[in-house]
Amino acid sequence: MVAGINKVAVIGGGVIGAGWAARFVLNGVDVTIYDPSPEVPRSATEVLGNARRAYARLHGAALPAEGRLSFAATLAEALEGADFVQENLPEREDLKQRVFAEADALLPPHVIIGSSTSGLLPTKLQAKMAHPERLVVGHPFNPVYLLPLVEICGGGQTSAATKARAAEIYTALGMQVLHVRQEIDGFIADRLLEAVWREALWLINDGVATAGEIDDAIRFGAGMRWSFMGTFLTYRLAGGEAGMRHFLHQFGPSMKWPWTKLIGPELTDELIDTVAAQSDEQAGGVDLRTYERLRDNCLVDLTQALEKNDFASGKVARAHRARLAGGTALPAGGTLEADGHLLTIATAVQPEWIDYNDHLTESAYLKLFGDATDVVLARIGAGLDYVAAGHSFYTVESHLRHLGQARLGEKVEVRSRVLASDAKRIHLAHTMIAVHSGTAIATAEHMLVHVDAAAERADPAPEGIQAATRALVAAQAALSPPDWTGRAIRMPG
Amino acid sequence: MVAGINKVAVIGGGVIGAGWAARFVLNGVDVTIYDPSPEVPRSATEVLGNARRAYARLHGAALPAEGRLSFAATLAEALEGADFVQENLPEREDLKQRVFAEADALLPPHVIIGSSTSGLLPTKLQAKMAHPERLVVGHPFNPVYLLPLVEICGGGQTSAATKARAAEIYTALGMQVLHVRQEIDGFIADRLLEAVWREALWLINDGVATAGEIDDAIRFGAGMRWSFMGTFLTYRLAGGEAGMRHFLHQFGPSMKWPWTKLIGPELTDELIDTVAAQSDEQAGGVDLRTYERLRDNCLVDLTQALEKNDFASGKVARAHRARLAGGTALPAGGTLEADGHLLTIATAVQPEWIDYNDHLTESAYLKLFGDATDVVLARIGAGLDYVAAGHSFYTVESHLRHLGQARLGEKVEVRSRVLASDAKRIHLAHTMIAVHSGTAIATAEHMLVHVDAAAERADPAPEGIQAATRALVAAQAALSPPDWTGRAIRMPG
Repeated sequence: MVAGINKVAVIGGGVIGAGWAARFVLNGVDVTIYDPSPEVPRSATEVLGNARRAYARLHGAALPAEGRLSFAATLAEALEGADFVQENLPEREDLKQRVFAEADALLPPHVIIGSSTSGLLPTKLQAKMAHPERLVVGHPFNPVYLLPLVEICGGGQTSAATKARAAEIYTALGMQVLHVRQEIDGFIADRLLEAVWREALWLINDGVATAGEIDDAIRFGAGMRWSFMGTFLTYRLAGGEAGMRHFLHQFGPSMKWPWTKLIGPELTDELIDTVAAQSDEQAGGVDLRTYERLRDNCLVDLTQALEKNDFASGKVARAHRARLAGGTALPAGGTLEADGHLLTIATAVQPEWIDYNDHLTESAYLKLFGDATDVVLARIGAGLDYVAAGHSFYTVESHLRHLGQARLGEKVEVRSRVLASDAKRIHLAHTMIAVHSGTAIATAEHMLVHVDAAAERADPAPEGIQAATRALVAAQAALSPPDWTGRAIRMPG
Repeated sequence: MVAGINKVAVIGGGVIGAGWAARFVLNGVDVTIYDPSPEVPRSATEVLGNARRAYARLHGAALPAEGRLSFAATLAEALEGADFVQENLPEREDLKQRVFAEADALLPPHVIIGSSTSGLLPTKLQAKMAHPERLVVGHPFNPVYLLPLVEICGGGQTSAATKARAAEIYTALGMQVLHVRQEIDGFIADRLLEAVWREALWLINDGVATAGEIDDAIRFGAGMRWSFMGTFLTYRLAGGEAGMRHFLHQFGPSMKWPWTKLIGPELTDELIDTVAAQSDEQAGGVDLRTYERLRDNCLVDLTQALEKNDFASGKVARAHRARLAGGTALPAGGTLEADGHLLTIATAVQPEWIDYNDHLTESAYLKLFGDATDVVLARIGAGLDYVAAGHSFYTVESHLRHLGQARLGEKVEVRSRVLASDAKRIHLAHTMIAVHSGTAIATAEHMLVHVDAAAERADPAPEGIQAATRALVAAQAALSPPDWTGRAIRMPG
């Protein structure tokens, strides 16, 4: 699913390497991890499990068939047949230089090597390579499979083509590329992260606040704004009507106050003990994997919250899902089929519609039937614009039958019929079909009444809508009447 | 709605003062703003308008009747009858000292004065007061009406009672109090904010990145984590299975790298021009109020996303809504009322159940009725444990009628009845009632069939469940039969 990339070698399978592996695998690319640690096959497989769960919630059935995750015993074995390499070794310049020189000798020259370094300079990292033009920093953020940011930074010998191709590959994985134009220690993001981190460690070192208090100071305040607006746009708004210039002049003097310190505090054994103990207290005995799932749930829900606003990470996720789905959406008013049925919904079952039995949950049926009703309404000219103008059709009565089941990712369709209409009413019938079996899994029958929303009373629909409804009834007249409408619920016998 | 606080004086009505005024007013407290600027009545009223819209989306009908916002021509007029004072003047120590001395002379000694200063020391601010014990810092974050964080910091003469009472008042407004135990410049949060801000300005000053790029470096990466976990819990997870201690040892050496600088860059006219121009470019001509609404929408949706996870700001918002609504939970099997009805659901309408019309959405009715069914099943011994053991009741048919509407935050109840049962079937009827009017807004009728989940076929329920069901039918036998069951959907005439 990433054009031209069928197999990726991931060098170093810790938290970051395993996160990269998961992102590639979930986007349909085979990955081989090379890491000498015997723990890595287990831990990286666990990370993939967490990632699969989170990514399914984020993108659902839009996801391609998973790539395969494997583990190599040697660097050479991992690189065999790789179209792209992502390195995630410890932050030691000499180690990375040595591994890059080795990989350089084993790979055909067109294969790009991305480094996850969070701060080492690519010019130094590529110094011992015969093909330094292929080395580029692609610095991600944990968890790699959910956070969109990747900083791309080339060294003095990195080619423009390498940077452009790396950007293409990372974008195809659903990431947001930030080109770091000037090669500096810490690139851009980590300078900001490090500033917070050092200041936070001083606050603990000086006994001002605990780890938990410092986290609270962030997450209940500025952290919420940072998650979608960053710092400059936030301060632009804080400046009020006078804007950024006013803000700068107002707060300029405080720039001289000695509020931050140049370097972090000495990480003495004592300070490490203090921070670790406070961190343990904050975690309250809850284990790592549980926190990882909580974090991932929050990140997915946050992304979807921002998606509602078509902003920041939500915009990136929406674009990625559209890319994955390859745009097979139905037209706004559905598709009238040759036999007279109106195809109103065609979708894969989404993770948020599933119950604890892994089946489409009861209220999700009505959600899908409600969406199908909206498609019918859009077709007769009573869509969202019409609602915004103050009129609408309200559902006053519904009758549902459950005949079968649908599971996560299965494709379902809804075929809809207008059975009858008058000036104020529409009588609708929907059938939900499991595409793989072609059988009906549920039916719905609805009575809708046209209302003046402000007055909250029924009134006749405009003639244009009435005419469009009659035309649809006529177009569907050749269909034999469903044998399941007009039913009542009764005990047998 | 804030016990003992009927009227608040807000001194200084800029972005922060107007935000405080909005938070008090929306929580039912009268506010008088004193600010000599002639623009303030207009701008503060606009802020209240934005806040009203956002806060309604966040808490809906759980909100009390609004307080009244007024404007005073003098400090003395504003303080008249005030139960609490919140000061939001420019960050000048001499100015604040003077106003506090003035207010001190005008107010009865029990009235607490909170200062919104983001960094001045309360010991200095209270130096010229006759009753310094009543002065406390209550430092909020913009927008004050949505971000929960407030830092409470006392000076050397602030009384413990003042700090405790201020915490009570701010908590009653839905805020999350962080007690700053050691009085330092910038308290806790602003030291972290200032670290990011100074580093960000250096990045622009040195030509490394633009305002837009720096914001992207935050919002697509670490900013997302900061919004709910802060920095220490995040790094605990980044440390992987080895945890915080490993993380500290691994990244300790980089603490010495000169990645951050002691003080901010000189804010020359040239740098101010550069930052302001980049900020304009980033804003892309979109005006302030539009961005404020986008920000508020994102913050509300983010808060609700975290509420799904009962974490961070979402947990604070849920607690506040419960406090506003005076919430009470039902027992697992519901409450059998004297008249024979089983009360199965009692809840306020949650934000995720609301449609674009601000009404309880169609599928949410079925969700609530489905939850009511689960309560009935728990009562007859077929709850989640029973499902986990491989048997269950499946809904095979449902009939819903919509009679009225419910809005965000309104209380609704579901009263349930088992109409009949046999070895395999249960016939259920639910009525949803809007508590404020006592009228039925929807009804549901369900036929449930007992199934062996693995075999996916109907089979008789165990005798214990059958007996419990019969007992419930008997307990409800005195109720007159509902006149709305056994209906079919048909066009009239």
